[in-house]
Amino acid sequence: MEDHQLVKNKWLELLQFPLQGRSQKPRQKGLTMILDKGLGVEETRGLLETAGAYIDMIKLGFGTSALYPQKVLQEKIGLARYYGIDIYPGGTFLEIALHQDKLKEFLTMAKTMGYTAIEVSDGTVSISPEVRASAVAQAVDHGFKVLTEIGKKNPLDRVPIEKSLEQIHADLKSGASKIIVEGRETGKNTGLYDREGHIDRNHVALMLSAVDKPERIIWEAPLKEQQQELILDFGPDVNMGNIPPLELIALEALRVGLRGDTLRSIL
Amino acid sequence: MEDHQLVKNKWLELLQFPLQGRSQKPRQKGLTMILDKGLGVEETRGLLETAGAYIDMIKLGFGTSALYPQKVLQEKIGLARYYGIDIYPGGTFLEIALHQDKLKEFLTMAKTMGYTAIEVSDGTVSISPEVRASAVAQAVDHGFKVLTEIGKKNPLDRVPIEKSLEQIHADLKSGASKIIVEGRETGKNTGLYDREGHIDRNHVALMLSAVDKPERIIWEAPLKEQQQELILDFGPDVNMGNIPPLELIALEALRVGLRGDTLRSIL
Amino acid sequence: MEDHQLVKNKWLELLQFPLQGRSQKPRQKGLTMILDKGLGVEETRGLLETAGAYIDMIKLGFGTSALYPQKVLQEKIGLARYYGIDIYPGGTFLEIALHQDKLKEFLTMAKTMGYTAIEVSDGTVSISPEVRASAVAQAVDHGFKVLTEIGKKNPLDRVPIEKSLEQIHADLKSGASKIIVEGRETGKNTGLYDREGHIDRNHVALMLSAVDKPERIIWEAPLKEQQQELILDFGPDVNMGNIPPLELIALEALRVGLRGDTLRSIL
Repeated sequence: MEDHQLVKNKWLELLQFPLQGRSQKPRQKGLTMILDKGLGVEETRGLLETAGAYIDMIKLGFGTSALYPQKVLQEKIGLARYYGIDIYPGGTFLEIALHQDKLKEFLTMAKTMGYTAIEVSDGTVSISPEVRASAVAQAVDHGFKVLTEIGKKNPLDRVPIEKSLEQIHADLKSGASKIIVEGRETGKNTGLYDREGHIDRNHVALMLSAVDKPERIIWEAPLKEQQQELILDFGPDVNMGNIPPLELIALEALRVGLRGDTLRSIL
Repeated sequence: MEDHQLVKNKWLELLQFPLQGRSQKPRQKGLTMILDKGLGVEETRGLLETAGAYIDMIKLGFGTSALYPQKVLQEKIGLARYYGIDIYPGGTFLEIALHQDKLKEFLTMAKTMGYTAIEVSDGTVSISPEVRASAVAQAVDHGFKVLTEIGKKNPLDRVPIEKSLEQIHADLKSGASKIIVEGRETGKNTGLYDREGHIDRNHVALMLSAVDKPERIIWEAPLKEQQQELILDFGPDVNMGNIPPLELIALEALRVGLRGDTLRSIL
Repeated sequence: MEDHQLVKNKWLELLQFPLQGRSQKPRQKGLTMILDKGLGVEETRGLLETAGAYIDMIKLGFGTSALYPQKVLQEKIGLARYYGIDIYPGGTFLEIALHQDKLKEFLTMAKTMGYTAIEVSDGTVSISPEVRASAVAQAVDHGFKVLTEIGKKNPLDRVPIEKSLEQIHADLKSGASKIIVEGRETGKNTGLYDREGHIDRNHVALMLSAVDKPERIIWEAPLKEQQQELILDFGPDVNMGNIPPLELIALEALRVGLRGDTLRSIL
């Protein structure tokens, strides 16, 4: 790892993290993905200088990639790469490309601009299993790390859980490296969370039953109580996504027991 | 429009906005007003570099204008003007000036400092129709774009709807260019929204009945569900205010269908 | 006070604050403590340039002190001191030091790094009255301003109110200069606030009964309605803590009546 990515904090010469076992970057588990809804260049730089060691992936939410001045977009992508962070456009943006029959051009342009990962989802646009499999495979062929998302954004669009489990198997077979479970930005009223944001443990168990190892799954967990519960259940190295940038350091504190809510578990 | 205000984003060479018809700056409809509760100079600069094309008005909320170091205030005003954005003190501040019998001096000082617009309201301080009409007219005379606000901040102060409709007519006659419908910062428990933040469609219809064209009205809509509903009802070019700066790009994504919640409407 | 800490705002040559009597820095009452959950260096600088006159204390929340790159941490501490602001690690961090039997080393390292205050709490870790008294006394001996916190983070850990009152007496005797009443980051479901965040006035009265003067207490009040109620009850110079940095200027507007919710009280 390059020097600018190391956190040399003197407190760590004195105190131990209450929860042990947190992995360092580059890591395969314990990933944190932030949902970037419009950070400027200097904000991004400040965030990464402060907390780059705790970010593994940046999602430029929804289709916001198309709304930045090109220069701003390129600088954001460059900063992410400098800090060893994967950066990708939100799944909705690829859904739009598919809907406009521009998948190949989309992948080529994303590659040219420097994105390092691609999310394939059908949260809003309906996509056949064949098209989905092909999209994953093409993204892999273009050299991207491919993440697929399971879940619908609108409760009216929900599908039977068996269909989701089949989708996970198919995605992994097509070359996806991680499966993202939809939590939306609000963390409420998705398959994973009820209307108050409480985790449906049955849903969690079913998702886990479909993968070869738990770290295959990234749980979108925007709310603190969700993060806390996932850490208490699965330990510091559970993968979490849709983290608001302002909550990033607070999340890392939860992971390692530097906050009351998880510290309490070891007393 | 000057070059620094153009968004040249390469994705737009490839993909189309799912919702078409969004106006470019300078525009008369589709206005976005942000509620600035204390951005610093560099934060403001970063916001405008990133999203200046999507902001039409900046309100320095309540009386916060009086709390900035003068240099910070002047730089903020200068940045807004450079990006072709109207900037004005919150309506409460003018109410205080009226209450302290300093309207004329208030307008002169606002002009000297470089504010380009004035909001006339009676959200907290009671103002007679004559004083309100005079305040609007004097602000117009000073060369300001004048916005008036309809609605009371405290539910206990509510007035009959007929009085609000008369007020709209009077404001337009006095020279107001836009009518702002109160939504507060919370988006809850105003005339326009109920305690959960749901839009009262009857209230919307009544407000619209009082103006010559829909774009005369700016709806304060701080919550995403409110923004989404207004866009689905009135299209991408509905005027919205009290947008939190952090939500600005996400709002623009909603306007043009780059987010699931509005994208879904065209599928 | 040094020149860079003065707010010279020209509006104040014209208008008076509706609520009078707000103290200037350095002040003994009317303190505002912000909860910093991960601001970067430039964000901190921007915040202090904009609103340094309204901040008396910065708490680096929970154990986040251990998560910053050392250079970032040192620059943040330096900026706080330049603006005449006390800065200290969250109480949970000291609880961890006590739990790992490193109190003395903790205080020495905090002094070396430049923190100016220490919070002693038992929000998560159980600490005997003797250890608590000793920790306060040792922190005073190291030259720190000492704040102690009353309250448990987890509702299951609550203690009888009489024990809290005894704790306040003991803390003051040991050398604490201020007593912080726990409000958490959420402002809900603590001893002070119910599940909806409403203040328990009986709890307030009991806390006040235990101190020699009201300004001895800092009320953690993260939600606007709580801030508003405290100002309406105790005036502009009530001490408040756990203020989100983004709400700082809005809080100051509330304090001096530049916002409808407190302005209304003097009409």
